[in-house]
Amino acid sequence: MAGFVAPLDRLIQEFDKLPGIARKNAQRLAFHIINMDEKQVENFANAIIQAKKNIRICSVCQNISDNEICSICSDKTRDESIICVVEEAKDVFAFEKLNEYKGTYHVLHGLISPMDRKGPDDIKIKELLARIAKGNIKEVIMATNPTVEGEATAMYISKLLKPMGITVSRLAYGIPVGGDLEYADEVTLLRALEGRNKF
Amino acid sequence: MAGFVAPLDRLIQEFDKLPGIARKNAQRLAFHIINMDEKQVENFANAIIQAKKNIRICSVCQNISDNEICSICSDKTRDESIICVVEEAKDVFAFEKLNEYKGTYHVLHGLISPMDRKGPDDIKIKELLARIAKGNIKEVIMATNPTVEGEATAMYISKLLKPMGITVSRLAYGIPVGGDLEYADEVTLLRALEGRNKF
Repeated sequence: MAGFVAPLDRLIQEFDKLPGIARKNAQRLAFHIINMDEKQVENFANAIIQAKKNIRICSVCQNISDNEICSICSDKTRDESIICVVEEAKDVFAFEKLNEYKGTYHVLHGLISPMDRKGPDDIKIKELLARIAKGNIKEVIMATNPTVEGEATAMYISKLLKPMGITVSRLAYGIPVGGDLEYADEVTLLRALEGRNKF
Repeated sequence: MAGFVAPLDRLIQEFDKLPGIARKNAQRLAFHIINMDEKQVENFANAIIQAKKNIRICSVCQNISDNEICSICSDKTRDESIICVVEEAKDVFAFEKLNEYKGTYHVLHGLISPMDRKGPDDIKIKELLARIAKGNIKEVIMATNPTVEGEATAMYISKLLKPMGITVSRLAYGIPVGGDLEYADEVTLLRALEGRNKF
């Protein structure tokens, strides 16, 4: 006998396709599903379908939303003159958890990455420029990840924006709070040194 | 903002309930789902529903099956006089992969475990006895896991079967092949010594 019974094999294959789920784990999850109540299984399948169906992209900031305009962009207490540019929707939530930032966001949905054949037109840069063209934007904070692609994308966008007379800033690099100097990589340490502040 | 948008939050919660999937991982999976094609999402949800709906328990050996009687029990080339008793359906597949065992199985769907308030009536022991009562069974191999509950369950069943004149055997304990004596726990080493074979 090659595998399990067909419907189980199919489910294992589906789980196996998900990121970070290895074959053994996919089996375990599939067995868990067939041992769940029918109602729970329905709820799970439904949550999957509904998430896909009901989530769209905010027409302003490109963040995920369940409305045409997301809750942040439609919140009149937020400062619309500051835009924090991030790679993915999850980055927005990382900032929101801080409960500190009161500006708006722009989600690029990726980074410029020649290796993956992703150019400026493959991410939401046009949409960012269109927002800025409407005026009233004072500052754009580049908050892409501190990777080669994140850096390159931040650099590319900042070069487009500077001639428009907009302040473009970048998140500070440095030693993570609670980190240990000994274990910081050289690049981080160098950036921490370069970016040192006066007491 | 407390969480993500509602449909996404719900999906994260559903993933979070699955075994071995932590919160961060659940988020990652949920984001992956909403970035998948609609068709792929449908396939995934469908695989879940179909697995639950189409998988049943073989009326003979209690293994999971897509028919009234599973492919092993309905295979006339298998030796019906030998039954290998296992805890879970996945154990059957572990044996089947060996391509060596030609008898049949009996899946208990759990073990006797007073800690979890599981007694003999909560697992498929009655069904095993009924099979044996029909006659023609020569040997029952106890292949429950080598845990306290696995041992206790094997012991319990073997005590029921011995008066019926059936050979009851237990999987051999010992050093795992390729293992290192130095790292074997004492109980395993003791069992390996007790169970030593002649060259």
